[in-house]
Amino acid sequence: MHTTEFDTTLPSIRQLQNLIKQAAVIEFKLVTGDLLTGKVSWQDPNCVCILDANNQQTTIWKQAIAYFQPKS
Amino acid sequence: MHTTEFDTTLPSIRQLQNLIKQAAVIEFKLVTGDLLTGKVSWQDPNCVCILDANNQQTTIWKQAIAYFQPKS
Amino acid sequence: MHTTEFDTTLPSIRQLQNLIKQAAVIEFKLVTGDLLTGKVSWQDPNCVCILDANNQQTTIWKQAIAYFQPKS
Amino acid sequence: MHTTEFDTTLPSIRQLQNLIKQAAVIEFKLVTGDLLTGKVSWQDPNCVCILDANNQQTTIWKQAIAYFQPKS
Amino acid sequence: MHTTEFDTTLPSIRQLQNLIKQAAVIEFKLVTGDLLTGKVSWQDPNCVCILDANNQQTTIWKQAIAYFQPKS
Amino acid sequence: MHTTEFDTTLPSIRQLQNLIKQAAVIEFKLVTGDLLTGKVSWQDPNCVCILDANNQQTTIWKQAIAYFQPKS
Repeated sequence: MHTTEFDTTLPSIRQLQNLIKQAAVIEFKLVTGDLLTGKVSWQDPNCVCILDANNQQTTIWKQAIAYFQPKS
Repeated sequence: MHTTEFDTTLPSIRQLQNLIKQAAVIEFKLVTGDLLTGKVSWQDPNCVCILDANNQQTTIWKQAIAYFQPKS
Repeated sequence: MHTTEFDTTLPSIRQLQNLIKQAAVIEFKLVTGDLLTGKVSWQDPNCVCILDANNQQTTIWKQAIAYFQPKS
Repeated sequence: MHTTEFDTTLPSIRQLQNLIKQAAVIEFKLVTGDLLTGKVSWQDPNCVCILDANNQQTTIWKQAIAYFQPKS
Repeated sequence: MHTTEFDTTLPSIRQLQNLIKQAAVIEFKLVTGDLLTGKVSWQDPNCVCILDANNQQTTIWKQAIAYFQPKS
Repeated sequence: MHTTEFDTTLPSIRQLQNLIKQAAVIEFKLVTGDLLTGKVSWQDPNCVCILDANNQQTTIWKQAIAYFQPKS
């Protein structure tokens, strides 16, 4: 598994931290083609954990993320 | 093969350790599209080993994990 | 997730920085096959963030980029 | 190519070493979707080498392994 | 994104440098299945930049290259 | 792009070096699904270069190799 550059001053790390604080709903497109939607509960160098509308918890490996978008 | 950031204080590592202790059934979605289900018996920086309902052992490379979910 | 060689003297890093300054519209082809188009707002070692014509923000993981082209 | 965490005390490395000693038949599922079956003859940080029933030798890059299972 | 072993004495780095000098037309097959053709204008540890017959510039991430061939 | 553990005492590196000396014809299966066949002319930490029956040269990125087999 790949580890992240997890310097908390980096824009990409701060952006996710802000989205956690805002409890924003985010869509994650994965390299598998899966589209996962939820509020981010935490991130670490390896993973992002989200909670969907049914409180189902999913731990996404960062290595598998293609892109994410705040859901408008 | 990719190695993991295997600091045992990281949320992603602790989460898997807790799921091992709880003998929770987990679904792993892989980058191949495979969905593997089982109880996690161990993890190390490279792999996660699961046992399915028939006691079949599968060693998953962490590099191939897209996401996992506790099975509800 | 993979980190970038983020030496700002590298041609690939400078090229993206120039495209940010020029507010150029760029097409990103991802390893998923997705084609995302927008102006780059920032890059860091992990990600490139783009804004599309509707001001939708998308954060692309660099690990998932196959190639990009200035849109002509 | 990715290198492995090749600490021989790791469970994932020891597991493969044990399977080599036992001359166990293993199925390897690759990220390409290929399923390769054989006895493991050696591993190193980059590769796993297997021999199939016809003594055909195949060198698998660890980076391409999704999971493996002892064949029951 | 993955960084390259960018030692300029390595055969793979020198080969691309020679192809730049010769203004050779190269086909790049990417992990997406895309086949991109052009003259290489520069490489760095992250990327290879090509110009096609219409002078369209494409920046290819090295992480996404499967193989390349001088076009005969 | 990923770099290889390029310690020339490793079995995987030595195996390729022996196949170069023997001018053996090898099949490389790539993560794209492509099957490339040829004699290996050189390897370095990033790439393997092969020559096919028509003397067409192809430089394969090691990151894209799933497995290889001496052609029987």
